[in-house]
Amino acid sequence: MAFSNRQQYPDFTRDENALRFIPLGGIGEIGKNMFAYEYGGEIIVVDAGLLFPEEEMLGVDVVIPDITYLVQNAEKVRAIILTHGHEDHIGALPWVLGRLNVPVWGTKLTLGFVRRKLTEYPDLASVTLSEIDPNEILQFGPFTVGFFRVTHSIPDGVGLTIETPAGVVIHTGDYKLEHSPLAGPRTEIQKIAVAGSKGVMALVTDVVNAGDTGWVPSEVVVAISLNKLFINAEGRIIVSCFASNIARIEEICNLSIYYKRKICILGRSMRNNIEVAIQLGFINSDVSNWIVNPEDIADLPANGITILASGSQGEPFSALRLMSVGEQKHVKLKSTDLVIISARPISGNENGFYKTVDHLYRQGAEVIYQNDDQVHVSGHGNEEDLKMMLALTTPQFVVPTHGEYRHLVRYRKLAENSGIPPERVCFLHSGDILEITQEKAEVIGKVQAGRVMIDGLGEGDIDAVVLRDRKHLSEDGMVIAIIVINSITGQLIAGPDIVTRGFVYLAGVEEILEEAKTLVQERIQSLTEEEGTDTEFLKSAVKSVLKKFIYGRTKRRPMIIPEIIEV
Amino acid sequence: MAFSNRQQYPDFTRDENALRFIPLGGIGEIGKNMFAYEYGGEIIVVDAGLLFPEEEMLGVDVVIPDITYLVQNAEKVRAIILTHGHEDHIGALPWVLGRLNVPVWGTKLTLGFVRRKLTEYPDLASVTLSEIDPNEILQFGPFTVGFFRVTHSIPDGVGLTIETPAGVVIHTGDYKLEHSPLAGPRTEIQKIAVAGSKGVMALVTDVVNAGDTGWVPSEVVVAISLNKLFINAEGRIIVSCFASNIARIEEICNLSIYYKRKICILGRSMRNNIEVAIQLGFINSDVSNWIVNPEDIADLPANGITILASGSQGEPFSALRLMSVGEQKHVKLKSTDLVIISARPISGNENGFYKTVDHLYRQGAEVIYQNDDQVHVSGHGNEEDLKMMLALTTPQFVVPTHGEYRHLVRYRKLAENSGIPPERVCFLHSGDILEITQEKAEVIGKVQAGRVMIDGLGEGDIDAVVLRDRKHLSEDGMVIAIIVINSITGQLIAGPDIVTRGFVYLAGVEEILEEAKTLVQERIQSLTEEEGTDTEFLKSAVKSVLKKFIYGRTKRRPMIIPEIIEV
Repeated sequence: MAFSNRQQYPDFTRDENALRFIPLGGIGEIGKNMFAYEYGGEIIVVDAGLLFPEEEMLGVDVVIPDITYLVQNAEKVRAIILTHGHEDHIGALPWVLGRLNVPVWGTKLTLGFVRRKLTEYPDLASVTLSEIDPNEILQFGPFTVGFFRVTHSIPDGVGLTIETPAGVVIHTGDYKLEHSPLAGPRTEIQKIAVAGSKGVMALVTDVVNAGDTGWVPSEVVVAISLNKLFINAEGRIIVSCFASNIARIEEICNLSIYYKRKICILGRSMRNNIEVAIQLGFINSDVSNWIVNPEDIADLPANGITILASGSQGEPFSALRLMSVGEQKHVKLKSTDLVIISARPISGNENGFYKTVDHLYRQGAEVIYQNDDQVHVSGHGNEEDLKMMLALTTPQFVVPTHGEYRHLVRYRKLAENSGIPPERVCFLHSGDILEITQEKAEVIGKVQAGRVMIDGLGEGDIDAVVLRDRKHLSEDGMVIAIIVINSITGQLIAGPDIVTRGFVYLAGVEEILEEAKTLVQERIQSLTEEEGTDTEFLKSAVKSVLKKFIYGRTKRRPMIIPEIIEV
Repeated sequence: MAFSNRQQYPDFTRDENALRFIPLGGIGEIGKNMFAYEYGGEIIVVDAGLLFPEEEMLGVDVVIPDITYLVQNAEKVRAIILTHGHEDHIGALPWVLGRLNVPVWGTKLTLGFVRRKLTEYPDLASVTLSEIDPNEILQFGPFTVGFFRVTHSIPDGVGLTIETPAGVVIHTGDYKLEHSPLAGPRTEIQKIAVAGSKGVMALVTDVVNAGDTGWVPSEVVVAISLNKLFINAEGRIIVSCFASNIARIEEICNLSIYYKRKICILGRSMRNNIEVAIQLGFINSDVSNWIVNPEDIADLPANGITILASGSQGEPFSALRLMSVGEQKHVKLKSTDLVIISARPISGNENGFYKTVDHLYRQGAEVIYQNDDQVHVSGHGNEEDLKMMLALTTPQFVVPTHGEYRHLVRYRKLAENSGIPPERVCFLHSGDILEITQEKAEVIGKVQAGRVMIDGLGEGDIDAVVLRDRKHLSEDGMVIAIIVINSITGQLIAGPDIVTRGFVYLAGVEEILEEAKTLVQERIQSLTEEEGTDTEFLKSAVKSVLKKFIYGRTKRRPMIIPEIIEV
């Protein structure tokens, strides 16, 4: 927030010939990827993602980047360019586009997902969505943007080559160097290498798997594992994976067709995504002929059905979670069912994930997950993939993104071993203005940036105080004392009434509260008239009596709310 | 709770010659291990552990087993026998002993930890603590109890052979089959095998690593890794591990002494445990001569100090966590510091763990954790260890314990491959009464059992309603409407006053609340006199108006609390 009251365009140490790179999210965190490139007073933005809230953000639905800087400079923003269709890269669009009327660029499938998302926001019907052909070059003011295809856990992803008068940036987006993807083209290594051979000023790269040694395994490994499970399965097969993992979903559909199993899709996001992917040709259209409704499951033989279910992270109310507790309307699990969870728990989801596994087992099903038979591989490159990218691009500077701090540190080490001195690896924070030229890369200031919490309807209406209160309430509950006084004399007319919620459930709690009432009464009677008619004084007197007494008797610190009503 | 109103001693299908095994916790969960063995109307109890609360148990400090059954049969309980000194095996003792005056048996170190724990409970000063010599045989009524030493991540652990007229049970406790432990004796394989050769009716076994293939690596692997790190370290070394992992701690101390580093211990539990272990001879007494105070750190050369810090799980306010955010009084991290986290995050702790790693890196320190250089191995046996235990004991029946449901399922599979048919592996729930003879093992009923939540001072004073309220409060906060009415006429005297906490922080929220007030006023004025003087009616009328209005305007569902004060 440091610069929010300064001039809108911070150019204190401005180098006219430098490119500015301003991350609005996505560094030191996994999620809300959004990066601004600025040159000669013009801006392009790469991605506009959301972050799923952390545990301590009680009641918050999603977190988006603070785009104040872009809004203040709206007339300079030429485009938002999307690398791929994952929520952490496109999920903030509805809020961003509500405040910033900018054309959005993306590949076919990415725009397919965006369109589907925007149907829920009729106000945004007029937004311009333009399709990227990865073989074309686009011009946005001083930015000449080319594309190279990348493999990832969602098809139709691209990386960017951004040419500016200051130099060339390669922005990888999320990627791995898969040479045998099950669907779609391979990572276009040659394009990257050719750009690299001409000289790259900066590489902006995905580093989330820094720390995982070797190469990330090929998706083919998963296909082989799944095939083995399909061959041997005699009962129903229930598979769960990320709803956006279209290549994996297509593979599961293909296996189902090969083994003559109809396909039932459970879960709204999965159904939507598959529909979009079939429409746009990213899943073989023959699959449509095999899809059945949930009502049909009961009529099919066990070895004639595959159920594709959402909920690979054990999300509450997802199809898989409902099945695991016997609450899914159409699928009651049996001992002959085989459940395959083709995903790994994302950090923070472990509890829900393992609970779901336990419950699935309790239903009697066989469960294949995680370490079993390699039914999942990461969509991001491991250390050898990351080193190869460095070798392809030989950049002057590197900006690691899409990683927590530990990943950045691990990446810096790996880069050093690949010949990039540590001082050429730039660690940034949201809002940092990095000025880059061929000679130097330097943080010259900061724009307003941070986390905007979305809770239900509103944007930015949850702040630290609200969260602190929720946390306090969640730990010890609350005690409200209501007192009615004569506004002239300060005399007690009624009360104190004491109400509690989320507080203890003790046998003796009633007596404790009665005693508390007496104490509060005594305290009020002991006040002088000036004190008693001063609402603030009265409140704090009541609060302090109650706080001390309740802690002494219960060793708890509920939120204490004194309310004075004057009549 | 099904049997709580029946006769105290459920003997509906009782077989006089059978042994009864009643788990009060520790199956289908990791924690609160507590198992009752009952024969001929007499009972011995193995362990009395606690469970650390799960995420959704808001504000709960610890969870202990419901021991109603034991309290109702107090005169039959001969002893509580402890297998080792971990909290999930001894942590419930203060509460259990408060309700059950029974002698407690444990090995030297285990009792050392128990004694230290009980000093905080002066009421329990008269409890009888008796030391187990693992070479002796103890007699408790019909139970003849022998012991075999086991290796685990805490020294002085034992397993039990329990002979009864019905047959012999081997109760492993937590174990791995380590043949080269760094401290203390090896698992006494021969004793187990001899008991096995005479015929074992049931094996009650730790299965938490079922699903992890192979043998669990030796502690020697960790020692070698640590040694390598110590050789190369030029700056300060900060090591964190579980405070109870005495063997690991001793190894770190020995390395420190060898490399001429003084040792500073940060964290109360770690300091206490080391003190107990030195007193009882489980850590070389020479270590005392090397221990320095935190104040002395500043005066020592960087390569002359090892700091042993609590907080290997990233616990709030632990020494390591405080260091990671620059708040530890005596240790401000520098780029020459090496932090080694010699532990892995327990399921559910991942977030805190990785955040701590990120923050440690932010302080500039080098951090070694998890996958790096094998600085940690599990204290529990992997699948090969578990199979070996089956081979040593060749039991008629097996009761897997100390595992979530998925571990039990994995274990059953492993046991099947080791020649134990699945129907001889008994899956139990807390409270199940398993009757075992040489011929059959059968659940014949259930005693009252479950989770008792401890929040601060009180036992069992947090129930489902309190937790539900806390959860509700934590998600959307609350809105309180206070109304003062004339108790005779039902006329509104003052209010409604509307108070919110943890609710939204919207620009327009003030106006919304003003509007809400008006709506409530109108609603009250629209009531008939009978309705208005009926407090319950009035409350529900106010609540329903507010609920609908607030949801409509904010799309949130805070807890709505109408309070009527009659004057």
